Amino acid sequence: MAARDFFCNFGARNRETAIAAIICAYAIPAVIIRTPIKPIMKKNFEYLTRLREVMKTKGIDAVVITGTDPHQSELPPHHWRGREWLTGFESGNGTNGTAVVLQDDALCWTDSRYFIQAEEQLKDTGFRMMKEDGPEAVDLIDWLTEHTKPGQTVGIDGMTFSISLAQRLEQQLSDNGVRLDDNFPQFDFIYPERPARPQNKLFIHDEKIVGETVDSKISRLMTEVKAELANAVLLSALDDIAWATNLRTAGDINYSPIFVGFLFVSDTQRLLFVDEAKLTDEVRDHLQKYDIRIMGYDDVTGFVATLPKETRLLLDPDKTARGIYDKVGCTPVFGGSRLAKLKSIKNPTMLANLAIAMEKDGVALTRFFMMIEKEYPEGKLTEVELGKRLRQLRLADPTCVDESFAAIVGWKGHGAIVHYEATEATDVAIEGDGILLVDSGGQYTYGTTDITRTIVLGKATDEQRHDFTLVLKGHIALGTQIFPEGTTGHQLDSLARQFLWKEGKAYYHGTGHGVGFFINCHEGPQNIRLNINPTPLEPGMITSNEPGLYLEGRYGIRLENLIVTNVAMDTEFGRFLKFDTMTLFPFDRNLMQTEIMTDSEIEWINSYHAEVRRRLVPHLTKEEAEWIIGKTEPISR
Amino acid sequence: MAARDFFCNFGARNRETAIAAIICAYAIPAVIIRTPIKPIMKKNFEYLTRLREVMKTKGIDAVVITGTDPHQSELPPHHWRGREWLTGFESGNGTNGTAVVLQDDALCWTDSRYFIQAEEQLKDTGFRMMKEDGPEAVDLIDWLTEHTKPGQTVGIDGMTFSISLAQRLEQQLSDNGVRLDDNFPQFDFIYPERPARPQNKLFIHDEKIVGETVDSKISRLMTEVKAELANAVLLSALDDIAWATNLRTAGDINYSPIFVGFLFVSDTQRLLFVDEAKLTDEVRDHLQKYDIRIMGYDDVTGFVATLPKETRLLLDPDKTARGIYDKVGCTPVFGGSRLAKLKSIKNPTMLANLAIAMEKDGVALTRFFMMIEKEYPEGKLTEVELGKRLRQLRLADPTCVDESFAAIVGWKGHGAIVHYEATEATDVAIEGDGILLVDSGGQYTYGTTDITRTIVLGKATDEQRHDFTLVLKGHIALGTQIFPEGTTGHQLDSLARQFLWKEGKAYYHGTGHGVGFFINCHEGPQNIRLNINPTPLEPGMITSNEPGLYLEGRYGIRLENLIVTNVAMDTEFGRFLKFDTMTLFPFDRNLMQTEIMTDSEIEWINSYHAEVRRRLVPHLTKEEAEWIIGKTEPISR
Repeated sequence: MAARDFFCNFGARNRETAIAAIICAYAIPAVIIRTPIKPIMKKNFEYLTRLREVMKTKGIDAVVITGTDPHQSELPPHHWRGREWLTGFESGNGTNGTAVVLQDDALCWTDSRYFIQAEEQLKDTGFRMMKEDGPEAVDLIDWLTEHTKPGQTVGIDGMTFSISLAQRLEQQLSDNGVRLDDNFPQFDFIYPERPARPQNKLFIHDEKIVGETVDSKISRLMTEVKAELANAVLLSALDDIAWATNLRTAGDINYSPIFVGFLFVSDTQRLLFVDEAKLTDEVRDHLQKYDIRIMGYDDVTGFVATLPKETRLLLDPDKTARGIYDKVGCTPVFGGSRLAKLKSIKNPTMLANLAIAMEKDGVALTRFFMMIEKEYPEGKLTEVELGKRLRQLRLADPTCVDESFAAIVGWKGHGAIVHYEATEATDVAIEGDGILLVDSGGQYTYGTTDITRTIVLGKATDEQRHDFTLVLKGHIALGTQIFPEGTTGHQLDSLARQFLWKEGKAYYHGTGHGVGFFINCHEGPQNIRLNINPTPLEPGMITSNEPGLYLEGRYGIRLENLIVTNVAMDTEFGRFLKFDTMTLFPFDRNLMQTEIMTDSEIEWINSYHAEVRRRLVPHLTKEEAEWIIGKTEPISR
Repeated sequence: MAARDFFCNFGARNRETAIAAIICAYAIPAVIIRTPIKPIMKKNFEYLTRLREVMKTKGIDAVVITGTDPHQSELPPHHWRGREWLTGFESGNGTNGTAVVLQDDALCWTDSRYFIQAEEQLKDTGFRMMKEDGPEAVDLIDWLTEHTKPGQTVGIDGMTFSISLAQRLEQQLSDNGVRLDDNFPQFDFIYPERPARPQNKLFIHDEKIVGETVDSKISRLMTEVKAELANAVLLSALDDIAWATNLRTAGDINYSPIFVGFLFVSDTQRLLFVDEAKLTDEVRDHLQKYDIRIMGYDDVTGFVATLPKETRLLLDPDKTARGIYDKVGCTPVFGGSRLAKLKSIKNPTMLANLAIAMEKDGVALTRFFMMIEKEYPEGKLTEVELGKRLRQLRLADPTCVDESFAAIVGWKGHGAIVHYEATEATDVAIEGDGILLVDSGGQYTYGTTDITRTIVLGKATDEQRHDFTLVLKGHIALGTQIFPEGTTGHQLDSLARQFLWKEGKAYYHGTGHGVGFFINCHEGPQNIRLNINPTPLEPGMITSNEPGLYLEGRYGIRLENLIVTNVAMDTEFGRFLKFDTMTLFPFDRNLMQTEIMTDSEIEWINSYHAEVRRRLVPHLTKEEAEWIIGKTEPISR
């Protein structure tokens, strides 16, 4: 059972009680970070057989099963994780996979992050693994087109397919004379043990913290809706709904305080489709205050069916379920890229509160790294143990509701695995000389944090110090760049890579992702990657700055701060923007090779460290303060 | 009359004679760089009236007239420049404009480079100017849709519209119930004085210089054609045809030695459609050697009409005329992006020869800038005079066939106009203290050059030195960057801008364009711009590196070298590429503010200048050598 299952139904009546309830929930000693993998292989054959029988009865020749929910969540609640359950390819953090079942074959597609895990877990389940990326990639839709015949029928559960994905599938199948039946909710037929939808209570994310009323948000939302030539909108993405309603929960989704529901907004109606059990009196009052009527979660399809023709309903084809779209009785308008931007731009109140969250996070990290330094010589620490301790230290703060993702704690060679998750099977003791990479974050009511630090334990080699400094130089180059309004992340990304590239070194992930505010840790529309993204960086957007370097089997380095885009200056050449660093924790001075740093890089480190010291010391004990003062002493050549 | 008119019909029998003929042509004293603007306003009304009469007779309600030819040339021969002639908006270098004529209105669209010129030239012609870009832009097709009624007919000359443009026009008009008649060659009816197609003789671009036979090129071309799932190709773009046939001419097109024709290639047939008068015995032998049959230029439409259905004919929809496409009898395949890459990658022989062209160009520039230094105190030099002198100095080399574009010579504030062309009307004397920007290049049989240098005459201000150095730092940063295989220009562009941006300064043009080899000075598919371009930089590609800064009314700075992409190293992270600088001429040491340069920037300048000195001195007189030695003395802080 995942940690989040502890947080259910705490029935908070106001924010303070909610927080108290959260503390209580987290006080339960066994803080488990992820679900252990259960051996469920035997089960699969039974259910796979049962599925094939239902397919025969219903005249379905092939079925495609995604791993998502009606909200296109990356990490859906267990209620919608039937694909994991059917195939046995699963983990507490969720996996990426799409299954295809025919009478004589069963396959499960996944991406390169999961090849090893999926291969192992799918063994003897009746499913075989297919690669979704890499040189041996096979396109699922192409494969299905080749393996179905004219006149046959492919079934899907339309509620777990986005409009755009279902459209692509249907188009290609119909070109081949194959019919798509999008009303085949396979798990309703074969999965009686299916977990219920999460019924966690909602709580209000205080307007004093978010700096904007629901009225104001909905009014800005409607302006964008009208700019898309629509007059109403149905929000399906859970982070969009949490943002618009200033409501949150704990437990619906791991690592993010968003909740399961739909939101409909027009000039005359505001409707929240949500399970009754999730509502407290306080939340009911909040909704009533903003004229938001409550409807049952399952009423959404019936509602969209009755909308009059004059309603031009904005639907994001990538975020809305085909099953919803099928029912829409009014005029659909496809769009929605403007909506994501509303959420991505943080107002001054949010930024001021995020600064508080950063101080809280810096305090937790101070205690964490100080503990490592102290206990490391005993040789008893392991990656898994460090993960648990870090979680405890963060959640000790009453405003920290959850971690913002499963912490990555990688010692030596494990640090070189970009998406490493320590498990009992992979866990190693932290001993000897080496480099430790820790990438983690917290969901504070004051904002979401995400930070990576890389430290040396024992003695660093010159090579390690050199590589660390190349990454650091890139981090500083990007973080201190000033750029014209209208600049996009893909135009800046190489600044973070330039020093590594000059030595024939590289990392293969993006340098920065957008970060939500007490919502998802990863959000769009902006990012800083080599990949093309036409969204310009705008004042108020929070993005990570996390260049790295990974030497297989040896060590990994990643240095991550969150940066906010602000106005730098207005000149005869137009408006220029800059980044301001929000994260507060020192970089490891023992890994800096100052001889390859420029004067201005050294100045930047010293001034950043002085700020870290100034901001953290007031919240620390004397011993901790002394430790952080030592870690932030100025460097020089 | 443009300079190129002097080069016609010189009847060269081999390359040497061709060159001799060119020298002779250029020896004519009056080397006019561009056509003076003729007052032809009275004429227009007559022809506009005549056009409207023809439109009535033929039932055409509106006509759209592009400024291009059946090859989508940017600067077409005069035969196809009827739009300029009809509207009076013209220049020797060509202008960008599209005219629309209705019975009660006549308009000419152009882009921001030409707003001032067009406004002036269109005065009292019956045409009014429309803006194609900028805040007051009006989309031509949108405008036409609004100003035509269902049942009406819009006429175009299908031979001067690309397939894609005509398609877009037709689609939008037909949505509005308006018919497109693409067989309305308006100038055939109203333009009896139309100049003939250029009949300049072709000559062979020596295989020893281009390092590849026509057979090899056509075989590689066919590989790409088949990769696009076609089995034959019709090349319309003149630079593609010149590349594939190793043939050139002088005079068909200003500033580029390409010639007017079409080339058809399949596994069994190779056909060059070209006017008979352009062929010499030598060229006939060359074509015969490579099994290329000669067909009349006008036979191309008849030929494509008779191709059998099994022929899958590759057509680039942006480069092929709608008038050709209309006639195609076989199966058309749209594509062609792979073909441009063949031409863009230069082989080692070409690069070795380009190095020779660079030495020749460096010698011409040495003489030019030395002359300026000598004569400037007399106060008699002007921008126009400098343009003439520079042309003479370049063309003094027998292998220099033409300039590669109209040289930009901008003194003080004129240097801040990015596309400045000095005319008698704008010309100023080079006197007082100031900055001179010279952007120019040559079409050598050994390759095409393009270089910009910015020098100070008299005393430089600290601000000028500072700005120059910021641009120089960007030039060096881009030129010395190493990057992984697969990197595109838009991923590198900000490296050249970073130092300017940090001070709130910017330039609004691309940093680099692809450069042809004794073909067009500007070619694709690669470039280095902020704009998205998915083409990676590959070994052998030549690109310019030309950051700049423009202070309106004060001065302009641009520093341009041509750089070739080469392999830098192979590491555990893959293959890395680098740029090597090809251009050979010093940057002005008097404008360098060494105190803001890093050690490695200073080292780069000194090592580049040492190379310039080493390569140019052997070709210079004693006096010239001394001058260049002085200009390449090492700098230090």
